[in-house]
Amino acid sequence: MSLFDWLIVHGLPIVPKPIVRRVASRYVAGETLDAALATVEKLAAEGAMATLDLLGEEVRDSGRAETNTEAYEAMLAAIAQRGLTANVSLKLSALGLKVDEELCRGNLERILAAARQHGNFVRIDMEDASSTEATLHIYRDLQARHSNVGVVLQAYLRRTLPDIDALPRVGANVRICKGIYIERRAVAYKAYETVRLNYLRALEKLLARGVYVGIATHDDHLICGALALVDRLRVPRERYEFQMLLGVEPELRRVLLAAGHRLRVYVPYGRDWYPYSVRRLRENPKIARHVARAMFTGS
Amino acid sequence: MSLFDWLIVHGLPIVPKPIVRRVASRYVAGETLDAALATVEKLAAEGAMATLDLLGEEVRDSGRAETNTEAYEAMLAAIAQRGLTANVSLKLSALGLKVDEELCRGNLERILAAARQHGNFVRIDMEDASSTEATLHIYRDLQARHSNVGVVLQAYLRRTLPDIDALPRVGANVRICKGIYIERRAVAYKAYETVRLNYLRALEKLLARGVYVGIATHDDHLICGALALVDRLRVPRERYEFQMLLGVEPELRRVLLAAGHRLRVYVPYGRDWYPYSVRRLRENPKIARHVARAMFTGS
Repeated sequence: MSLFDWLIVHGLPIVPKPIVRRVASRYVAGETLDAALATVEKLAAEGAMATLDLLGEEVRDSGRAETNTEAYEAMLAAIAQRGLTANVSLKLSALGLKVDEELCRGNLERILAAARQHGNFVRIDMEDASSTEATLHIYRDLQARHSNVGVVLQAYLRRTLPDIDALPRVGANVRICKGIYIERRAVAYKAYETVRLNYLRALEKLLARGVYVGIATHDDHLICGALALVDRLRVPRERYEFQMLLGVEPELRRVLLAAGHRLRVYVPYGRDWYPYSVRRLRENPKIARHVARAMFTGS
Repeated sequence: MSLFDWLIVHGLPIVPKPIVRRVASRYVAGETLDAALATVEKLAAEGAMATLDLLGEEVRDSGRAETNTEAYEAMLAAIAQRGLTANVSLKLSALGLKVDEELCRGNLERILAAARQHGNFVRIDMEDASSTEATLHIYRDLQARHSNVGVVLQAYLRRTLPDIDALPRVGANVRICKGIYIERRAVAYKAYETVRLNYLRALEKLLARGVYVGIATHDDHLICGALALVDRLRVPRERYEFQMLLGVEPELRRVLLAAGHRLRVYVPYGRDWYPYSVRRLRENPKIARHVARAMFTGS
């Protein structure tokens, strides 16, 4: 294994910030809400919807969780004010899940109330497997009282198929993605082909149950499989949407939009762009190799 | 191809017995029935069921077939006496299939009678393609009179899908595995992905027909596919079991047991551990490479 490959596999732990910043501009809308809203407007011109995410993950004190909650309230107000087709995605760890579950739940309720006031929707993102159970529990609990909340399931988790059985009977809204965190083999399928297989099985089960699905992937194999499923099950176009990340596969995005499918782009922004950008680099070996080379040759 | 890889692919034909013995201890419960029963008790403590197999394959005279038959009768009595959750697996060639088919059938009937007396079950294992037709013929014939007998189908065989159509309409019980013998291309699929595909197609057909299935595999991809099938077809947990070999993937075994699936471990024992262990080595490139290295470097 070359040094470059080692760095890629092990998550580029030591990439200097200026180098990450150079490529981060592709994956992150900017440091401010204004920059993010400008990106949403550009995407709207292409026909794409958006979901905004304030970067910055696990908070360790209630003060930071409060700041994040207020930022989401401001985000929802700004989206409404500009009349944009965008909802919001958030991580429960950013609202204090690891500080105090009740605090986190209270913050989420405030954001859901703000979203309802503006006729908008909140997607609870999924993090590593240590939060899956708590996240699903909070989702199921709040979904019983709020119709404008959705969650994420990760195809690499062994628990995902049974988790679909425990979704709310009415109004469930799920983003399905492969999963990006490094998990133990006991909880997650590891092989690329197996994760793909489980992704399509989970998607089929979600669609067959009538769940609204955000089909989040840039993998053309999964897009092919998903299109075959919505076709075979005759799922109306307003019952699903494709989802892609800002900066990843813009051509594929345009292909799906041109074919008349709905598509939403994940638009992250904020000052904490470093860990997110490193995860994106790790996912993209071509860019990661480029970065690793730049680090060692100065090119 | 390195010498090591050549040896692995071509079945390590010349591995010295002391070296095989060293790794065999992982795959074989021991040389005696007592050792095997002790292993069954350890597995039961984990929540796993077992199937016992007396090693020693094709016999060339009726005396050896008689010895094996008596050993299986004793095995069934011992399982009952100790109250263990274990059935037995046997190869028809060990009961004299290649000596005289009628002799073999008579021996099998004796073992089935002993199993019935103890409320137990007998799995007829599958060997290389030269025995497939005779084995299925004997299975179908005896299954009409004995409810406590099952057979094995191998996913790598081209004939397996049509063979499912010829299974008994009522009470069929099938272990499905990939298949381990080296077969001609005319009878078997060779490519890894093709065998996987045929495995899942065969499993789906078996489950859809209501056959009780032993899902024998350590391939996480097939486990993922199998779980999706039992989920989609809503197969009750008492209508299938997973099956794994002693010494292979104990972690995966625990994952399935923890998720509430039934699982049976194949526990081979006996003095003829050499050919079985060499087959296991050939299946496990990591261990095989280790063995090959040890042979040539003495490490």
